[in-house]
Amino acid sequence: MERVFRHFQEDLDALKERLLAMGGLAEERVREAVHGVKDRDSAAVDAVLSGDEPINDLHMEVDDRCFKLLALHQPMAADLRVIVAAVKINTDLERVGDLAVNIAEAGKRYLQHPPVKPLIDIPRMGELAQKMLRDALDAFVRRDMALAEAVLAADDTLDALKTQIFRELLTYMLQDPETIEPALDLILISRHLERIGDHATNVAEDVIFILSAKDVRHHGADAAKPPAKN
Amino acid sequence: MERVFRHFQEDLDALKERLLAMGGLAEERVREAVHGVKDRDSAAVDAVLSGDEPINDLHMEVDDRCFKLLALHQPMAADLRVIVAAVKINTDLERVGDLAVNIAEAGKRYLQHPPVKPLIDIPRMGELAQKMLRDALDAFVRRDMALAEAVLAADDTLDALKTQIFRELLTYMLQDPETIEPALDLILISRHLERIGDHATNVAEDVIFILSAKDVRHHGADAAKPPAKN
Repeated sequence: MERVFRHFQEDLDALKERLLAMGGLAEERVREAVHGVKDRDSAAVDAVLSGDEPINDLHMEVDDRCFKLLALHQPMAADLRVIVAAVKINTDLERVGDLAVNIAEAGKRYLQHPPVKPLIDIPRMGELAQKMLRDALDAFVRRDMALAEAVLAADDTLDALKTQIFRELLTYMLQDPETIEPALDLILISRHLERIGDHATNVAEDVIFILSAKDVRHHGADAAKPPAKN
Repeated sequence: MERVFRHFQEDLDALKERLLAMGGLAEERVREAVHGVKDRDSAAVDAVLSGDEPINDLHMEVDDRCFKLLALHQPMAADLRVIVAAVKINTDLERVGDLAVNIAEAGKRYLQHPPVKPLIDIPRMGELAQKMLRDALDAFVRRDMALAEAVLAADDTLDALKTQIFRELLTYMLQDPETIEPALDLILISRHLERIGDHATNVAEDVIFILSAKDVRHHGADAAKPPAKN
């Protein structure tokens, strides 16, 4: 029994390590995609478009690890909670990888036009979304409730930036029809970044659920907040 | 043991029934939101905006049921697969509920402007997305592989409609700046509908995974297809 327990802990640690690796990869791809748009670096954009495989491989590996942990060890209570959360976090991280591709797709179209304006707020959104993702995963591994709650709070800033970007770009579009197409792509990019923040928020909520056995998703401190606006 | 087994089957059937109820609710909310936009029915739009609670309650109930099934019965192999899939499907259905709210939010803004054009393709996207969701859940409950595969195929049609809507609205925006704001909201609505199709696709992929123990998500028949375009 001791032996089985030790295997379980080792497998659980390996699972967490793979989730962290996946998070690092997802974050890196978001950074690369936003850099490509901001600095008009087509090579970076193309690298994101063609580099989805490692994260997809990790996605399947993590799912498989979760499944085996459930099947072989039949964990109870707290451990079960962690593994069910890992299944969900895995899905969130894979979607973040997809969103990096979506940013690169819009970015590729954007780079075919002259720049609408110097990009300030979109890189800021990118950095914030990456930080939220990193913090949410750190909170998962370190079982850090305060950090998870900080991620939920940061989502409001991301949302405010998105609204600000939308309003500003609208003025460009109204003044000059030439900017309509590229401005549309910037609006889409800001929404993809907002959704990355939503996935980080999902991860943070899972962490709070694990740590407190409290379901904050619809009745917690955030209950008054409507679903992600689009 | 027989008694425990029978309880397990009853609990599993109850879980499936709740997922179906949730799917029906999600579908109804999407229908109501699209109807509100198409027929300029503000009351319908407001009803969607304020009616998120039942689906959120079901989301927590289903999660709780999955967790108890795993903890109390420690199911193996095929049953384990179904319950892990149910956890994921539950997340997808909750997001569809959020997307109905997002459609209603964009719809509320849209109704403050004169109509850009009679809406044909957006209601068509709405119907298709609803059908995909219904079929994916039916495939889950009836263990119907062919139906799950049909859902994957339908996603291409949804994607094509989204691209067509985008191009058409772009021409309106370029011709008349007055249409920029409302056209933007229609573009967002078409993307929310596309994402509902993505969630139906996720459910269908989970069904195929359950039935074939084959992971189609990144290497299957659909491997050549990039992530959902935005």
